[in-house]
Amino acid sequence: MIENKNLKYFSLKEINCKIHGRTDESQSPLPLFWNGSAVEVNVTGTELWIEVEVDFDIHEPWVGCSLNGALVSRQMLMAGRYKICLFRNMSVDSVKNVRFFRELQAMSEDNGNHLLVHGFYSDGSFLPVPDRTYKLEFVGDSITSGEGTYGAKQEQDWIPMFMSFSRNYAVMVSEALDADCRLISQGGWGILCSWDNKPYENIPSCYEKICGLLKGETNEKLGALKPYDFSSWQPDAVIVNLGTNDAGAFNQPAWRNPITGETFKQHLLEDGSYDPADLKRLEQAVIDFLALIRRNNPNAFIVWAYGMAGYDLTLPIAEAVNEYRRQSKDRKTFFLQLPDTTDETVGSRSHPGPKSHEQSAKILAAFLKSLGFVKK
Amino acid sequence: MIENKNLKYFSLKEINCKIHGRTDESQSPLPLFWNGSAVEVNVTGTELWIEVEVDFDIHEPWVGCSLNGALVSRQMLMAGRYKICLFRNMSVDSVKNVRFFRELQAMSEDNGNHLLVHGFYSDGSFLPVPDRTYKLEFVGDSITSGEGTYGAKQEQDWIPMFMSFSRNYAVMVSEALDADCRLISQGGWGILCSWDNKPYENIPSCYEKICGLLKGETNEKLGALKPYDFSSWQPDAVIVNLGTNDAGAFNQPAWRNPITGETFKQHLLEDGSYDPADLKRLEQAVIDFLALIRRNNPNAFIVWAYGMAGYDLTLPIAEAVNEYRRQSKDRKTFFLQLPDTTDETVGSRSHPGPKSHEQSAKILAAFLKSLGFVKK
Amino acid sequence: MIENKNLKYFSLKEINCKIHGRTDESQSPLPLFWNGSAVEVNVTGTELWIEVEVDFDIHEPWVGCSLNGALVSRQMLMAGRYKICLFRNMSVDSVKNVRFFRELQAMSEDNGNHLLVHGFYSDGSFLPVPDRTYKLEFVGDSITSGEGTYGAKQEQDWIPMFMSFSRNYAVMVSEALDADCRLISQGGWGILCSWDNKPYENIPSCYEKICGLLKGETNEKLGALKPYDFSSWQPDAVIVNLGTNDAGAFNQPAWRNPITGETFKQHLLEDGSYDPADLKRLEQAVIDFLALIRRNNPNAFIVWAYGMAGYDLTLPIAEAVNEYRRQSKDRKTFFLQLPDTTDETVGSRSHPGPKSHEQSAKILAAFLKSLGFVKK
Amino acid sequence: MIENKNLKYFSLKEINCKIHGRTDESQSPLPLFWNGSAVEVNVTGTELWIEVEVDFDIHEPWVGCSLNGALVSRQMLMAGRYKICLFRNMSVDSVKNVRFFRELQAMSEDNGNHLLVHGFYSDGSFLPVPDRTYKLEFVGDSITSGEGTYGAKQEQDWIPMFMSFSRNYAVMVSEALDADCRLISQGGWGILCSWDNKPYENIPSCYEKICGLLKGETNEKLGALKPYDFSSWQPDAVIVNLGTNDAGAFNQPAWRNPITGETFKQHLLEDGSYDPADLKRLEQAVIDFLALIRRNNPNAFIVWAYGMAGYDLTLPIAEAVNEYRRQSKDRKTFFLQLPDTTDETVGSRSHPGPKSHEQSAKILAAFLKSLGFVKK
Repeated sequence: MIENKNLKYFSLKEINCKIHGRTDESQSPLPLFWNGSAVEVNVTGTELWIEVEVDFDIHEPWVGCSLNGALVSRQMLMAGRYKICLFRNMSVDSVKNVRFFRELQAMSEDNGNHLLVHGFYSDGSFLPVPDRTYKLEFVGDSITSGEGTYGAKQEQDWIPMFMSFSRNYAVMVSEALDADCRLISQGGWGILCSWDNKPYENIPSCYEKICGLLKGETNEKLGALKPYDFSSWQPDAVIVNLGTNDAGAFNQPAWRNPITGETFKQHLLEDGSYDPADLKRLEQAVIDFLALIRRNNPNAFIVWAYGMAGYDLTLPIAEAVNEYRRQSKDRKTFFLQLPDTTDETVGSRSHPGPKSHEQSAKILAAFLKSLGFVKK
Repeated sequence: MIENKNLKYFSLKEINCKIHGRTDESQSPLPLFWNGSAVEVNVTGTELWIEVEVDFDIHEPWVGCSLNGALVSRQMLMAGRYKICLFRNMSVDSVKNVRFFRELQAMSEDNGNHLLVHGFYSDGSFLPVPDRTYKLEFVGDSITSGEGTYGAKQEQDWIPMFMSFSRNYAVMVSEALDADCRLISQGGWGILCSWDNKPYENIPSCYEKICGLLKGETNEKLGALKPYDFSSWQPDAVIVNLGTNDAGAFNQPAWRNPITGETFKQHLLEDGSYDPADLKRLEQAVIDFLALIRRNNPNAFIVWAYGMAGYDLTLPIAEAVNEYRRQSKDRKTFFLQLPDTTDETVGSRSHPGPKSHEQSAKILAAFLKSLGFVKK
Repeated sequence: MIENKNLKYFSLKEINCKIHGRTDESQSPLPLFWNGSAVEVNVTGTELWIEVEVDFDIHEPWVGCSLNGALVSRQMLMAGRYKICLFRNMSVDSVKNVRFFRELQAMSEDNGNHLLVHGFYSDGSFLPVPDRTYKLEFVGDSITSGEGTYGAKQEQDWIPMFMSFSRNYAVMVSEALDADCRLISQGGWGILCSWDNKPYENIPSCYEKICGLLKGETNEKLGALKPYDFSSWQPDAVIVNLGTNDAGAFNQPAWRNPITGETFKQHLLEDGSYDPADLKRLEQAVIDFLALIRRNNPNAFIVWAYGMAGYDLTLPIAEAVNEYRRQSKDRKTFFLQLPDTTDETVGSRSHPGPKSHEQSAKILAAFLKSLGFVKK
Repeated sequence: MIENKNLKYFSLKEINCKIHGRTDESQSPLPLFWNGSAVEVNVTGTELWIEVEVDFDIHEPWVGCSLNGALVSRQMLMAGRYKICLFRNMSVDSVKNVRFFRELQAMSEDNGNHLLVHGFYSDGSFLPVPDRTYKLEFVGDSITSGEGTYGAKQEQDWIPMFMSFSRNYAVMVSEALDADCRLISQGGWGILCSWDNKPYENIPSCYEKICGLLKGETNEKLGALKPYDFSSWQPDAVIVNLGTNDAGAFNQPAWRNPITGETFKQHLLEDGSYDPADLKRLEQAVIDFLALIRRNNPNAFIVWAYGMAGYDLTLPIAEAVNEYRRQSKDRKTFFLQLPDTTDETVGSRSHPGPKSHEQSAKILAAFLKSLGFVKK
């Protein structure tokens, strides 16, 4: 291997580098908490490396890299501080757009999971990366974590390999509208509670922090639990894709807090229908979450998009969205049903596959266009 | 032209002939009132003609013919009593499945419009036509009348040529599930009122008659206004695709009854939102219609499918469906949003084109499959 | 039926009317000999009828009609002289482009088959129909006659219903390149002989006449056997799609002239390969036909496109095309293989279906683009 | 990172491991010379690592990994001997099929390029990997090296990143037919000479060695230059996709041997046509190569597939194939034209993109099916 003697190290702070995803930008190295969190550069030179620092207890991070908008690599990262080559032997003068992104969702179940970016090595120079026309925030569960977008249909193991940003409807919608995007999602979590009735595993509870579903001292040091500065990045639309796990909770046993003994459960009546009281608190959670999003994003369109993994809560969610609109007079909030996944569109782990993401991305992008979003 | 000397006349009554669509089967000749109304035969012999009787004041009927399930012809019919050849010179012994169907919706604006079937001429014999696995009833407006499924994008004339059964989501869903289907639809009509606020142009008001939107002495003689005998054909699912015109009414001037001076209008508030009182009566109309459908179809799934021509009333309709479920405990009633038509999927007259019908048919068929419908 | 009192009769001669397809334009009424033969008008007014005269012994003609470029009707025609309504009740001032075209190939097996156009009835006026950017001539067999493009897969009867221009690769290529087109084709015919070894059923023998494969006094009077005036319509490209039947002939018994006792046959050797002498005369027929086409179309690109119904003669035809190029120095002649039809793309009568035609049309249009054809 | 203490090392020799691609299987570590060269295992356990040894002067190897048939990772490899984790935390008992494959072609321009496999680390056990139904050998140039299948359309740098096995028509055909495959390809090389007239850069000259286009002591030690034992893996079909570079050579300046001063060039005549003498030696090279393939693969179908990057040599190649068939009486040799790449199907570096590979793979797989290949 003939070494390139001209490589120089550049810390993120000293170069033009666009940061994607909610993070604490004052940190060095920079944490990439969410799937879709990324560093993006426009760089000349023949060669580019990124220096990362990785750790985890159980679930390793996966990353992808796109070059001039095309996905070229995707890989698992092991623990350690090391360099990864992103390109080599390219024309020295041309400007290469490179995006190095996290494929794996933030991992609430592995507080040791960290993906930090120190800087780059290159023999080129770093030019500004302009913002795209729009900003979109996607808030969701395993669907938005891209679970099922990689791997064979038969797979049932819950492992990072099968989650992604690269085959995610969020990135497809963003490409269709020339938008930057940020994702906040967690597999198994809901609006009110998790698929197995854990009442604290809901996205609203962590929405106002940078990455509030993480715990532990290291994550705290990395800024995950800091309040998120909404003014720093005001989205043109917030897409909420939640409800699938709340539907599941009705069919799961109660959760019991192992310490306090307290329990939580969404109940079915004897006839198999949802207990009205439990449905009520779920609908209230929808209304409260919409109000919370609105408070933090005063000008954004808010679209509650639901259905990719089952239609069970279509009516209660739609009704709650409607009730929120009535109460708030907030006419920039919408409900959009997305097509359920079928045998033809399913991916691994019985989750929406790439074809399902493509189908929903088309419908969602068309809806946003009808609200005035125009790809230039 | 060498004449076939072996043709014999068969009136409908004396042969195996399956009748599609709501009609008065005691009539002779048999009226085909709705788009999708049809006669279907399994016939041997080399040649088949159908004898029809046609009239209209302004809007001529169009018909299509499928042979062994494949559409082979589509044409305009002029007034008169005459024979149309459906096939010639085919193998004498093979059984040919032939369906001769009306492409044009029932025409509430042309009481002179009639398409009657007297019988067939053939040199073969007529074998029984078995029922398909399921029965589906589709209730709708111009979308279900197939408006926009034929013709160039630029067309704006409101003429029968551009409406169809042959490129209609209703037939696509039925093919996908091996179902017979009946359609009840009228362009411009709504749940509560028409696109231009006519309060009597709503589908519920004519749902319990054979073809209650027709008027005039001839139609009455033909049985159009007779009560429809729901027991004769109980659908496995009723799909309601209404709401588009009710949404439009809010943006149209008031309708004034030219005789009584009485007026009707769905209002917008000054801020552009729907007047809550008007919305309320619309939602009540949804609830009442669901109850009416349920009363007449006690075992059917009912699916309110909405969105192919705009999402404006998604939330009020969803809420009304939910309210109906709550009040009635009717758990076999559902709401399904269908994707709005886009520049890519639009047809003539700014209506959903064939691609839009295909897209929605896939989603609707998948939904019915999830309810247990299985194509054998 | 309320009659339109404003209709006037216009003979073809007195109006702007574009004639498609080889015919004797001095005739009145005008014969439409080939599939794709058509009259096309740009007309204002609310209503348009065409007056035709039709006859046949056995095989009835089928026609189609497109309005503003969209196919709206397709039907069988019976014998007689009568009017067919093409549109009604359209906006009086708008210019409607209407093409009334023959779906059925010229019928060498039915000398009584005629489709003649007398004129139009309309309440509008007829504006000029401009030429398209290019002119394309398609020369072929049952594939170019569109056999298999309509009807169910199971169909095996050889009847006009299953042939078409409307779903033919020829029209698809022409639309893709903004071209006018003329078709010369006959099912069963070949370069040298027919599928069953009839030595006179080859397209080259009739290429220089208007419709040289027809016989009988009436056809002669209609001008079918007149020399074709190539100077009147010089194509930019001639696409030859022949060879399928010549391949079949090797596997069929010898043909015997019932009168003279003379026989003809393309032979297989005992090992199943083509007899070299028979192959030689076939290759010579290819060379001779190319020379004949070139003589009559000095500036056209010539593309021998082969393969949609089997690849058997790919090598001999390619070699003959190459030999012709060598001998003639004619560098504007090409060979293009088209994809064979598969289970997924097959239509009725085991012939290429619409999907096969679409696939080949794409490849052929792309090839013509590579030669410099540009859709404006 | 919590370490898995149960991992054990397994050298390739001691386990069930299927080796893909021509190589010297007696080597340890095992060289993966060609794109598509791979090791494939069926393994239980929760975790699997592969130990590789990598080196190169300039052009780094890229690899991919599929799990249960689905591509899950693709990455660049740097020099060194190290382990790569292929999966972690999977169900211990299930059998995982893992294929670790080389994405990069053999690199005749970088004799330092080596990718060697030492063995695996796992906590599971290795079960036999059965052969697939068929064996296919693909012989080609940059198209078969997958050049252009990754990267943005605008890319023009010639780097390994843009070549692949994973998006290659060869793997698509093999999946469609349930076949194992071996690839022999080199960008820029031809049948007779390279794109720039280098007379020794032709695939036939290295066809009988394991990887005869490599040079240098290390490659020799690794067995690259050993005769290839054809009896060890007799393909059911050999697909030759060569000719694109031979066409290019006619338009390039002469090559001059820097040492001997000897030159080589394929000439155009003044009128722009191919010099017949040069064409002759090219056609002879086709004939000789077919004879060479046949000698080594007595029972295989041989398909010369050409056209994905231009049709220039369609006729000379077809004629040569035909001449070879005549001379040899070899009736299991065929010519198949594949569709040229268009603006819609092009990939990076103006080469066929994934859509072009898919299109050609479908046509090629259908052709092989017509020869009797049946996916079980």
